[in-house]
Amino acid sequence: MNTIGNIFRFTDFGESHGAAVGGVIDGCPSGISIDMAAVRHDLDRRAGRTCLFSVSERAKAEPDEVEFLSGITDGVTLGTPIAFIIRNRDARPEDYEALRDTFRRGHADMTYQLKYGIRDYRGGGRASARETAARVVAGAIAKQILLEKGISIVAKLVQIGADVLAEDITVETEYIQSLQQLQEQGDSIGGIVSCTIHGLPVGIGEPVFDKLQARLAYAAMSINACKGFEYGSGFGGVDKTGSQLNPFSGGALGGISDGTDFCFRCVFKPTPSIAKEVKGRHDVCIALRTPVIVEAMAAITLTDLYFEYMARK
Amino acid sequence: MNTIGNIFRFTDFGESHGAAVGGVIDGCPSGISIDMAAVRHDLDRRAGRTCLFSVSERAKAEPDEVEFLSGITDGVTLGTPIAFIIRNRDARPEDYEALRDTFRRGHADMTYQLKYGIRDYRGGGRASARETAARVVAGAIAKQILLEKGISIVAKLVQIGADVLAEDITVETEYIQSLQQLQEQGDSIGGIVSCTIHGLPVGIGEPVFDKLQARLAYAAMSINACKGFEYGSGFGGVDKTGSQLNPFSGGALGGISDGTDFCFRCVFKPTPSIAKEVKGRHDVCIALRTPVIVEAMAAITLTDLYFEYMARK
Amino acid sequence: MNTIGNIFRFTDFGESHGAAVGGVIDGCPSGISIDMAAVRHDLDRRAGRTCLFSVSERAKAEPDEVEFLSGITDGVTLGTPIAFIIRNRDARPEDYEALRDTFRRGHADMTYQLKYGIRDYRGGGRASARETAARVVAGAIAKQILLEKGISIVAKLVQIGADVLAEDITVETEYIQSLQQLQEQGDSIGGIVSCTIHGLPVGIGEPVFDKLQARLAYAAMSINACKGFEYGSGFGGVDKTGSQLNPFSGGALGGISDGTDFCFRCVFKPTPSIAKEVKGRHDVCIALRTPVIVEAMAAITLTDLYFEYMARK
Amino acid sequence: MNTIGNIFRFTDFGESHGAAVGGVIDGCPSGISIDMAAVRHDLDRRAGRTCLFSVSERAKAEPDEVEFLSGITDGVTLGTPIAFIIRNRDARPEDYEALRDTFRRGHADMTYQLKYGIRDYRGGGRASARETAARVVAGAIAKQILLEKGISIVAKLVQIGADVLAEDITVETEYIQSLQQLQEQGDSIGGIVSCTIHGLPVGIGEPVFDKLQARLAYAAMSINACKGFEYGSGFGGVDKTGSQLNPFSGGALGGISDGTDFCFRCVFKPTPSIAKEVKGRHDVCIALRTPVIVEAMAAITLTDLYFEYMARK
Repeated sequence: MNTIGNIFRFTDFGESHGAAVGGVIDGCPSGISIDMAAVRHDLDRRAGRTCLFSVSERAKAEPDEVEFLSGITDGVTLGTPIAFIIRNRDARPEDYEALRDTFRRGHADMTYQLKYGIRDYRGGGRASARETAARVVAGAIAKQILLEKGISIVAKLVQIGADVLAEDITVETEYIQSLQQLQEQGDSIGGIVSCTIHGLPVGIGEPVFDKLQARLAYAAMSINACKGFEYGSGFGGVDKTGSQLNPFSGGALGGISDGTDFCFRCVFKPTPSIAKEVKGRHDVCIALRTPVIVEAMAAITLTDLYFEYMARK
Repeated sequence: MNTIGNIFRFTDFGESHGAAVGGVIDGCPSGISIDMAAVRHDLDRRAGRTCLFSVSERAKAEPDEVEFLSGITDGVTLGTPIAFIIRNRDARPEDYEALRDTFRRGHADMTYQLKYGIRDYRGGGRASARETAARVVAGAIAKQILLEKGISIVAKLVQIGADVLAEDITVETEYIQSLQQLQEQGDSIGGIVSCTIHGLPVGIGEPVFDKLQARLAYAAMSINACKGFEYGSGFGGVDKTGSQLNPFSGGALGGISDGTDFCFRCVFKPTPSIAKEVKGRHDVCIALRTPVIVEAMAAITLTDLYFEYMARK
Repeated sequence: MNTIGNIFRFTDFGESHGAAVGGVIDGCPSGISIDMAAVRHDLDRRAGRTCLFSVSERAKAEPDEVEFLSGITDGVTLGTPIAFIIRNRDARPEDYEALRDTFRRGHADMTYQLKYGIRDYRGGGRASARETAARVVAGAIAKQILLEKGISIVAKLVQIGADVLAEDITVETEYIQSLQQLQEQGDSIGGIVSCTIHGLPVGIGEPVFDKLQARLAYAAMSINACKGFEYGSGFGGVDKTGSQLNPFSGGALGGISDGTDFCFRCVFKPTPSIAKEVKGRHDVCIALRTPVIVEAMAAITLTDLYFEYMARK
Repeated sequence: MNTIGNIFRFTDFGESHGAAVGGVIDGCPSGISIDMAAVRHDLDRRAGRTCLFSVSERAKAEPDEVEFLSGITDGVTLGTPIAFIIRNRDARPEDYEALRDTFRRGHADMTYQLKYGIRDYRGGGRASARETAARVVAGAIAKQILLEKGISIVAKLVQIGADVLAEDITVETEYIQSLQQLQEQGDSIGGIVSCTIHGLPVGIGEPVFDKLQARLAYAAMSINACKGFEYGSGFGGVDKTGSQLNPFSGGALGGISDGTDFCFRCVFKPTPSIAKEVKGRHDVCIALRTPVIVEAMAAITLTDLYFEYMARK
């Protein structure tokens, strides 16, 4: 439902046009100094404020502000639940008024209406990408916990549409041009995010159902617009033989980390709301903002599996 | 760990060379007549006994026998936990004696040893594909529960190596020949399994973390050798635009089933144990046997989500 | 930890002297009109505002104000997580300054300090009775869900110290006098709360561990100062014979409700903070305020078990 | 349902007159040498074979035999699920034939029938005391894990009917006489079991819902015939004042162990099947056999809480 994790648990709440989105982090150890600048930086990444390609003029002007309500005193965790909220700023309800009686194509409007018999027509409600802001806050804290153990997580966009991006981001100007072109056409495009986990000790992942890759797939596939997950040889490895692939584990064997870097990739579909069809603010490529969300979900999952591993050690 | 599910739960146990593998199904409704022939047929599919290409001479001769210990009286479920075991037949320990002090490449031998400080060197132990027999029994029962609700699940192998298989299985003789060739070379190859869920009512899947696709990805990625999961437009859709993809949901919107068929695909790597390297019985293409396991994991997951959906209805 | 329930889940957060206490209710059905006056009334009961015997001058003046942040639109539930907060008003930190380096007897100061290596010395922190305000809000909503199913829960104080209270509360003046006497002496006293659940259908409670009485005992014993739980014949029935007790079930058989009223009793110890020892505001009899908390915990538990029962029905 | 615990989990199955009862222990650390004699001794205690007062001629003759199916090799745990079964011996179905169409008073026959629409009329089925044999096996293993950490659990019968038992069991002959008298009358009587946990480090128990006493109450109240749980000052302390009770914690403050012995007491009602009413084998005082079950449930719970405590340490 709206809680993820077993020992390190994150509960997430909030509609896009309600009072606030937020969450509760339970199972955070005590005595950790929280780097609030790092939390804000991750929120900025999610809002597209750090992006070369400007995804939102509005986000550039006004950062999301997070208020911590419990679990932290003088910047240090107490070991008790960390609750936080991000107030929703006044949205432009006039953009959504037209949606009162229509279901946007490719959106969850219809399934929410049919499942619950009610929905907040003013926006995506619970299905809105706004909800991921809370994940990013929890993820930023989880990354800090992991960093103390020597574990780092870095995700980046590696493909936009058919174009595989170069390692050197400074030469990306051509992709920015093609994104601008798509934006002018009122259309959108998909992308692939790659994530590398470095510094995992051997032994993380709980056979047989809580395999490292199974838990990470669950976490990643819970992100809006994510349509696939692969690790190691992935889908591209289908035509390789056993003798070709054996030297390469992808970071886990039997669902347990093997001490090498764990790498996985997620594909995101194009933003379903497109200006051609629906009035309002739309991302030309939702994948531009997702690396920080992928990092967050991986971090929440790994923190939980790390504590599970320590429990019986 | 070794339990999957929330309301409909499956707990799985057993090492490949221990006394038995088996499981406990908790949360099965009472009053369901279990079709034991269907359970046996699924076990035969997993053992490769129904395969045109003979994966195991031994399996052909001796089917797995399942004994139900509780939860069923006169073939009807009581609503109490259904425990079952499949005794392991005498394996050929002489094949494995050489492995006492070696770790097989691409296998979980090393990670189990390092995680637990002990392992059953006689075989894959808990990481063996043998463990999936218990999943298949639980899945066969879950499929019967779902069938009563009008939900059917069918998985099939759609690609071996680079070859996309024809719909008509009778023209597959050429693939059999290339598999025989690989087997003679002592090598192995990967494959892709496609799974279609038909008859799901609108509303299955629990936002935001227990999205339909997230729970199915978790279940599928927990199968040995599975390296990737995708649904709907998947990885192949990365270069499509929003206007091209919008009419196509893939079966879920916002993580909630939308009343259309839900289709997903899983890729399986080649068997890591190959005759070139390790003495013993090895599958030339593990993906040949996995469709029934994919069905089982999907069925266990959907039964749980179905009951979750009914709980508050 | 800080979440209770399986299908209907309540997550609770907040320190007594932090920004707020609050909670997240997950799994509440959509379309329920929330009676906010009933929520406020229960908060008033918890604060002692409805008590004949004045437990707190301050509470009388200023009621707790709850703000709902998500999951409710126009007073109706959306089926999404209901988050709420109750801001802590400015406490009197000067009362607590003396406690910076001392541990109050009978309080959790020491165990929190030793478990977490840190604590909020300004008050009980997470162990404070203030935390129960969030339980009461969740309980008030759970009681409304149950009431729609015909299930009602009523708890009341039945014993103060050695004195068994009369049914007719108007004749209680003598107990008020003895409480006033204790208060003047700077001491405190225990009490027993009785709770009756009426209208439960047959079949609530999940064998074998989630027996109705086991889940209710867990919920009740998680309330601060609760030292015991009993139902049916309870401790007093120890000297009865089988032939004497058999006609009387207490509301459940085999852990499953049997259609009769389920009655249980909880004992609360005297407030450990007493004016004799610690400066500050102290309750002379904490049990005076606990009936509404007992109702809340019973309601949260029963709503969860009710949905569990419906899931497979 | 039929699984208890979060990190250290026990799943229990089996009807009294089915093929077997048994269980699966998940989360047991690897490398623990299991003392099988201790397991058998606890099974003997449960069967009444160690009792001065003979509860069952049949139990005396034939001990329960447990078969371990997985998770243990050469007497040492592998870190994988430990599955075990105890085959049911041929019961005397003729004793039960008369019960096909009747519900025994004070038994779960009726509630099971109404909840599930089906029941195994030949005995208590899942509600039978026979199910506790599986708990005792899991508990014996949990006690061995805890003993390695310096934690011991001892439960004993302290009251039969109105009679408080002496510490020195050799002077109990008079109680044996009164039990024999009750047995001749075909009646039964209740009892109180006291349990002491020694050696718990400070810090066990997770606020706010998983308080040490809440989890122990849940575990104890899930035992058949248990009607009440109390710790510390308990029900008897209701008439004490704060100044009298403060020096005495009962082993936990704020739900967290404080380093002193934790003591709790459970009351068991008389066996509801009495020879006056129902033909068959009946215990005159079920509480005689329950101390080992109380120990088991406490041990399973504490092992789980201990690992939870270690996870973030």
